[in-house]
Amino acid sequence: MDEILKQTLLYDFYGELLTKHQKEIYEQAVLEDYSLSEIARDAGISRQGVHDMIRRCNKSLEDYEAKLHLVEKFMSVKKKVHEIDLLLENYEEQDEKELIKKVKKLSGEIIEEL
Amino acid sequence: MDEILKQTLLYDFYGELLTKHQKEIYEQAVLEDYSLSEIARDAGISRQGVHDMIRRCNKSLEDYEAKLHLVEKFMSVKKKVHEIDLLLENYEEQDEKELIKKVKKLSGEIIEEL
Repeated sequence: MDEILKQTLLYDFYGELLTKHQKEIYEQAVLEDYSLSEIARDAGISRQGVHDMIRRCNKSLEDYEAKLHLVEKFMSVKKKVHEIDLLLENYEEQDEKELIKKVKKLSGEIIEEL
Repeated sequence: MDEILKQTLLYDFYGELLTKHQKEIYEQAVLEDYSLSEIARDAGISRQGVHDMIRRCNKSLEDYEAKLHLVEKFMSVKKKVHEIDLLLENYEEQDEKELIKKVKKLSGEIIEEL
């Protein structure tokens, strides 16, 4: 997975567990794509300080995911719901019984995972 | 929601964020329903110590949920997947177009939430 997308997803799920200060810096760097120098100037800390903080935030977010696996779980569920969506999109081209069977299989798998 | 069910769900989601010792005590108390005295004796701590630890664990788990709302989200998604399941269960009694429309509406709502 693309590194920025991965960071964004991890932040979506676990960002609230960072401190207010960490969140501000992290959002500027990862979500708003400011340069380290710009963030350092605004926050009144060194460029190295910003860099270290972002690295520590990434480590925290990854540690939460390593323990809870919620991003992984939600991605898998989302993929299956999209498959249901796609099946229904083209329902007129398919045999009804087959379609229902496939959707039921997917919904069963989703419930198993939740 | 029933208090034990709520604690069990919170523990399912966030239990890995407790310490190993906290997890052992919490599992004995909440999931395996041992008495405080039994747990205290096994762990070699006071009954009051066990009581305080469980209270602190509950507070931690509730704090995580207050920040991340993942149990709430998960319950809502699960409910909607069950609705899809139920609609498909009785698909022969329903108008096909109506059925597809309802299921698509639910799958869309689930994707929004994830």
